[in-house]
Amino acid sequence: MQVLNVHLADQSYDILIDNGSLHTLGRRCTNIGLTGTAAVITNPTVAALYADGVIHSLKMAGINVTVIEIPDGEEYKNSVTLNSVYDALIEAGIDRKSFIVALGGGVVGDLAGFAAATYLRGIPFVQVPTTLLAQVDSSVGGKTAIDHPRGKNLIGAFYQPRLVLIDTDTLKTLPEREYRAGLAEVVKYGIIFDRVFFEFLERNSSAILEMEQQALQQMILKCCQLKALVVEQDEKESGIRIVLNYGHTLGHAFETGGGYGLLVHGEAVAIGIALAARISMGLGHCTQVDVDRIEALLTVFGLSFEPPAVERRLLIDALTTDKKVAGRTISFICNSGIGSHVVEKFSPEQLLVLGGLEV
Amino acid sequence: MQVLNVHLADQSYDILIDNGSLHTLGRRCTNIGLTGTAAVITNPTVAALYADGVIHSLKMAGINVTVIEIPDGEEYKNSVTLNSVYDALIEAGIDRKSFIVALGGGVVGDLAGFAAATYLRGIPFVQVPTTLLAQVDSSVGGKTAIDHPRGKNLIGAFYQPRLVLIDTDTLKTLPEREYRAGLAEVVKYGIIFDRVFFEFLERNSSAILEMEQQALQQMILKCCQLKALVVEQDEKESGIRIVLNYGHTLGHAFETGGGYGLLVHGEAVAIGIALAARISMGLGHCTQVDVDRIEALLTVFGLSFEPPAVERRLLIDALTTDKKVAGRTISFICNSGIGSHVVEKFSPEQLLVLGGLEV
Repeated sequence: MQVLNVHLADQSYDILIDNGSLHTLGRRCTNIGLTGTAAVITNPTVAALYADGVIHSLKMAGINVTVIEIPDGEEYKNSVTLNSVYDALIEAGIDRKSFIVALGGGVVGDLAGFAAATYLRGIPFVQVPTTLLAQVDSSVGGKTAIDHPRGKNLIGAFYQPRLVLIDTDTLKTLPEREYRAGLAEVVKYGIIFDRVFFEFLERNSSAILEMEQQALQQMILKCCQLKALVVEQDEKESGIRIVLNYGHTLGHAFETGGGYGLLVHGEAVAIGIALAARISMGLGHCTQVDVDRIEALLTVFGLSFEPPAVERRLLIDALTTDKKVAGRTISFICNSGIGSHVVEKFSPEQLLVLGGLEV
Repeated sequence: MQVLNVHLADQSYDILIDNGSLHTLGRRCTNIGLTGTAAVITNPTVAALYADGVIHSLKMAGINVTVIEIPDGEEYKNSVTLNSVYDALIEAGIDRKSFIVALGGGVVGDLAGFAAATYLRGIPFVQVPTTLLAQVDSSVGGKTAIDHPRGKNLIGAFYQPRLVLIDTDTLKTLPEREYRAGLAEVVKYGIIFDRVFFEFLERNSSAILEMEQQALQQMILKCCQLKALVVEQDEKESGIRIVLNYGHTLGHAFETGGGYGLLVHGEAVAIGIALAARISMGLGHCTQVDVDRIEALLTVFGLSFEPPAVERRLLIDALTTDKKVAGRTISFICNSGIGSHVVEKFSPEQLLVLGGLEV
């Protein structure tokens, strides 16, 4: 069991990483004072695999359980689903002594977290991420949100979980496409923060693809550590946290501009990473060799980084609506070699030119 | 100009109270670093009276302005209106360097504050309360929310404004019914916290009803001071803040159970106060003389406290859905004499019996 504490004054919490840890959820909740009723928010796919185990563990610890299912897919991370969750929480009599368990991937975690942040002005919640993307990124750091037709995550809150419980065994049931997509975020951490970790990924790519426990847990722990360090310095994204957006600015634009459903998030991030690397090289922040290594690692992980055809107008629109846009200026994160980063400022139009996306 | 600082670690802010202060809004915003674009959220009634002055003041300070109107009335403090505000914020290109100004009463302040708390995961906002209720209560302390068909303020967030600017002149255009309703909250502060203030209200009731500036400002300042003291000790209502709920538990039940629109909030609170006083007497926490004085002051302020006919089932339902309910136990605030309080625990059914509401 790896234990990582995220230090955030009165909102500190632990991230626990282990295989087979799901069945310990109940007592880990009571250990930190969470009792009453747990509203387990999940989707039918995850519920079929893990709801029974989670319910059993919670009940064994003396916690009442109610399960709230939301449809599976990013296209349901919206206000309609959120309102259905509010209704279900009220119906189940969930009060401020109760808590929410987010059992699933990023969509479940983001939406359940935002429900926890806003139901009765905030009740406790626990993240139990079951996808790689959620385990290395979205479950850590307290970003919660729903999407808006005009952009991803436009409505949300910074709201920290009380506990993140990562059971690496849950990755075994993840569709390969989702697992590979999650690796895009993993690669990101290496590129912008840690050359040694990037090289670890290059060396251990087979073990990672085969989900060997030691490599897997080491990889997830490192990602959580790197993310926690950033979040501790800048919980509300007024400073350094923005560098986590590496690969996301253009990634989001393709994800939104292409319509939800074309690309899963990690696939869009892989495209965004490759574009960011090339833009970084164009600006003199890294070499062709760096770009080649980045693209090679993405390729080894089965991630395509060829941008799909999306209308320029839609890309500009998505870039303009991005949360990190101040006025018309985008803070764009470049990699400085491999293992470091630098922030540049561009307009949406300049970005498209730099990315070779203007025809 | 009265200045009151609310001390909340990294979220401290000033409450400024003066007559004619509305035209100073622009420079007071720039003074605290708010620039960019101000999204002024208001309703048509308030906009007709004050939008021009506010817009002028902001523009003179170099701040761009966009005005977002929402319909007037508690029945619009819901997710439909909130979504229309999100759409308007996106349409106007409001980003994290911009801010929201809530210009209006409690509905505008609560909804605009919640929009600020959740748009792009939080942007700054300024409260410019124009009703007495908002000036002495809802604009202070960072409670933001929208209603749900099953209960008031069920969806919301604790989110502090950067500034509260109270222009007492705005009360001159307030319908008398709204002004009197606001006085119910004022009376509440005296009953539970400050006997001297209660006696000030008794002595100065005519001056207050005639809105004489000195009495008015002294009254509003005292309410803000008392509320700020509580909020500083317990921002997120895990402890003492619950005592502010005096008169609200049964008040809310009549407000919700009677259907939004029958009673304005302060009128419901007056009913709740009178019931709480009688329940307090029944439990030995105060005397008949105390109850008489409380009812006399409510009467002087033109506040009826006769409970309207509402079905028992609806009252129980509203009491059970109250945010402050843990399990089926309600923390019910009693007055201890006049000027102090004590917390009791009851089931919804017990409360109805104690309040003489069982037929």
